[in-house]
Amino acid sequence: MSYNINLNDIERNGERSVTQQLVDRFAELIDAGSLEPGAKLPTTRALAEQAGVNPLTAARVYRRLGELGYTTATVGRGTFVRTRPPHSAPADANDDTWQLAALPHRTPSYTEQMLEESFRSPERTDVVMLSAGWADPASFPRRAVEDAGRRVLAEHMDETLNYQPVEGVPVLREAIADLGARHRFATGPDEIVVTTGAKQAIDLAARALLEPGDVAVVESPTFAGTLSAFENAGARLLPMPVDEDGADIGAIERILARHEVKVVALQTSCQNPTGTALSQERRERLLELARERSFFVVEDGVYSGLRFDGPRLPALRADAPAHVVHIESLSKTVAGGLRIGWLAAKGPVLARLAQLKMKSDLHTPSMTQLVAAELLSGDAYEDHVRTSAAVYRDRRDAMLEALDRHFADAASWIVPGGGHNLWVTLDRPVDERQLYAEALREGVTFLPGGAVQPEPTGRTSLRLSFSIVPPERFDDGIRRLARALRAVQRRSRVAATGMIS
Amino acid sequence: MSYNINLNDIERNGERSVTQQLVDRFAELIDAGSLEPGAKLPTTRALAEQAGVNPLTAARVYRRLGELGYTTATVGRGTFVRTRPPHSAPADANDDTWQLAALPHRTPSYTEQMLEESFRSPERTDVVMLSAGWADPASFPRRAVEDAGRRVLAEHMDETLNYQPVEGVPVLREAIADLGARHRFATGPDEIVVTTGAKQAIDLAARALLEPGDVAVVESPTFAGTLSAFENAGARLLPMPVDEDGADIGAIERILARHEVKVVALQTSCQNPTGTALSQERRERLLELARERSFFVVEDGVYSGLRFDGPRLPALRADAPAHVVHIESLSKTVAGGLRIGWLAAKGPVLARLAQLKMKSDLHTPSMTQLVAAELLSGDAYEDHVRTSAAVYRDRRDAMLEALDRHFADAASWIVPGGGHNLWVTLDRPVDERQLYAEALREGVTFLPGGAVQPEPTGRTSLRLSFSIVPPERFDDGIRRLARALRAVQRRSRVAATGMIS
Repeated sequence: MSYNINLNDIERNGERSVTQQLVDRFAELIDAGSLEPGAKLPTTRALAEQAGVNPLTAARVYRRLGELGYTTATVGRGTFVRTRPPHSAPADANDDTWQLAALPHRTPSYTEQMLEESFRSPERTDVVMLSAGWADPASFPRRAVEDAGRRVLAEHMDETLNYQPVEGVPVLREAIADLGARHRFATGPDEIVVTTGAKQAIDLAARALLEPGDVAVVESPTFAGTLSAFENAGARLLPMPVDEDGADIGAIERILARHEVKVVALQTSCQNPTGTALSQERRERLLELARERSFFVVEDGVYSGLRFDGPRLPALRADAPAHVVHIESLSKTVAGGLRIGWLAAKGPVLARLAQLKMKSDLHTPSMTQLVAAELLSGDAYEDHVRTSAAVYRDRRDAMLEALDRHFADAASWIVPGGGHNLWVTLDRPVDERQLYAEALREGVTFLPGGAVQPEPTGRTSLRLSFSIVPPERFDDGIRRLARALRAVQRRSRVAATGMIS
Repeated sequence: MSYNINLNDIERNGERSVTQQLVDRFAELIDAGSLEPGAKLPTTRALAEQAGVNPLTAARVYRRLGELGYTTATVGRGTFVRTRPPHSAPADANDDTWQLAALPHRTPSYTEQMLEESFRSPERTDVVMLSAGWADPASFPRRAVEDAGRRVLAEHMDETLNYQPVEGVPVLREAIADLGARHRFATGPDEIVVTTGAKQAIDLAARALLEPGDVAVVESPTFAGTLSAFENAGARLLPMPVDEDGADIGAIERILARHEVKVVALQTSCQNPTGTALSQERRERLLELARERSFFVVEDGVYSGLRFDGPRLPALRADAPAHVVHIESLSKTVAGGLRIGWLAAKGPVLARLAQLKMKSDLHTPSMTQLVAAELLSGDAYEDHVRTSAAVYRDRRDAMLEALDRHFADAASWIVPGGGHNLWVTLDRPVDERQLYAEALREGVTFLPGGAVQPEPTGRTSLRLSFSIVPPERFDDGIRRLARALRAVQRRSRVAATGMIS
């Protein structure tokens, strides 16, 4: 830039102060583009000399220009014309286009897009929705919730309205601890923190346990929400394949040879999406590794009660209470809209989780906690879970029959021992996004395998949920899916032929 | 380390494989300390030669050692004895001492400690609790909540149990938008996201808008939860002092001369803790700056309805809907235990906030949302807020009288125009932690000024809340506080004298 700024017409005794005149002069030159963005302005001393003012006045001119957004100043380097023009803001107050430049860069991952899509389309009825592993609305215990709600309104109004402890309403923590004693995920109410669904518990665990760059081992495939939470905590996710015996713990050993592992996350029973349980041998090896190498295990037990072929398995946390954070909810067993979940942990990690819960929302709404406490008291809850499990087992069988009829020549699957989901892998890979789009056109949804795996595997898999669709629609749904697959295969053969010719 | 590892007694045809024998030999040497942590092992080729095995076997030996936790390997550098011994884990499964070494380093700030303390001690009755600015339990609209709850249980059971949209139950978003149209914080339900209290809305805003290192301007003093949320997002917090006309917007101009500002957070009416409102001139200047310099304004309006000297002021968001994220809740006006809050925004930032809400907990429990919708329908809510404001105004007056009686010679204060709090600054600074401890001993609590300011000011200030303590106890509470102050002053004079002599 040129230092020859014309300051000859500054009036010593004018109506505007000398400072203001100098400010206006620079502003005009910058607005007109005569002083370009990035240009260095004279030092305050040089300006003072040239304008015949004292250095304090010159400094005041530059400060004011900075306040007005015309310049930036860096100590020791000088004053520069701002690279962004100060008056570029939209005149229309409703214009929000500027926001994208101001917001942090954050693109939702494929996993997050699919998770969001699965939650944004529950109202579609023309589609056979095999994408959502929710509790079946037909089996909601409406009467029990209504009775519980009335008792809470009549007898616990003050607790409903007052702030409650961060960790949860005492009666609910006690009821959860009773459940924990039976299924061995907790030994007392002081180990419990109530959360707004298991989703929040997983998010809190990810944020409390992991720092950016930390290594976390997750099942492949797993729950999309776990992938999303751990990715958002900045963790590096390494995969642990799942087979008929649950997660392959040997993968952790291979990872440990090269990495410090901070967290291993898994579902030890009724795994989402395979429906498998971790074998006894693998359970023991996992805990040996956790103790030897000091990592946390996040055990997601949301489907654990929905076991088809026997009573619920004891929680992994039973054998390593200081290493395992156990997570559970009422979303799969009662209803998702209640948004009641919890975690069980002990030691410093419990305090961290409670602190983070406090920072997030102080506590889960008292009213739903109190209703949940009523629901969990007595035997009604466990009876309801057992009844539900039998319903879901029948649906699994119906789904397996439909697959046998329409998919036997194109795919293989793991027979789930519990839960809401079934994991199908195609014999030959196809583009899963194409398959998803084609299936939607045919009127059936599924959760694409890529959305529930931490890395591409080269195979094409689908999570099919059998929990919310009436079983009489399974045959139709799977047939539509088979039709979509054939269409995609046909197109890819045509494309391949086209490429060769 | 020495490469002279004795491998002479490896048996070619022994019971154990050669691989296993080599693994055991290295393990023994490492366990015994003969191979020290950090020691470099021979290359696979050197090991193969020395042991008379092929290189693949040597590689297998090292892989297995890695899996067992004895060694780490880095491509291109070699294999090393692990610096942490693999078998140091505690034998007792309940021992949780290892956790502190495994958890991320995170020390709660002073602000967070005080915030936590204020929420952990609500049950103390022997103490005059001037530390909590909550809605008064005596004024909870118990009957209205009970009626609303009964209607929800009778008429909205399915909505209670089903998953709901991330942004909130439609009827509640509409009821909030109606309120928003009256008080000009929103123009339609599509601008609203329901949250679990304003605390969650502030936390979501901090995490959606800020990246580590970003500059955020906050009021000094302000709400402790805002400081905590913004600090946890990794922001650099710069202060904007508050006087009788609200936040000093000139401070933003001075900060803008040196920094890119990402967010300015403030309460434009019934400011916590000063009870002041932002002057019209400052409102206009703030929005000019926001438009010129493209930053977001987070407007916390949780106390806005509790104005003492006239009707509620229009929200700042009215004049810049794309720049202002307005936050509000029912916690100060109805009851904190409901955990119902909301935010109003538009454009890409709204989508970001909704995504983050989804990742946090899918949605706020349906039941409390539906109850809130019932509470907000009709005029009952606004009538209740007006009635409450009159109650709090009387308490403010009673608190001012008590201060006049016991504190006039030691401190000055701002007369709050609304809200639950009063900001007192001592004429001469004392150690505020000593004062807090001494006050607790005397049987009175307050929120120390340092916990609600982003940086030390050199002054000693106290936030006194008059909302939950019956006014007949104010005189006693303030007298105890004055006594505590005199005790601390006396001690510091003695200490000073002692230092001089």
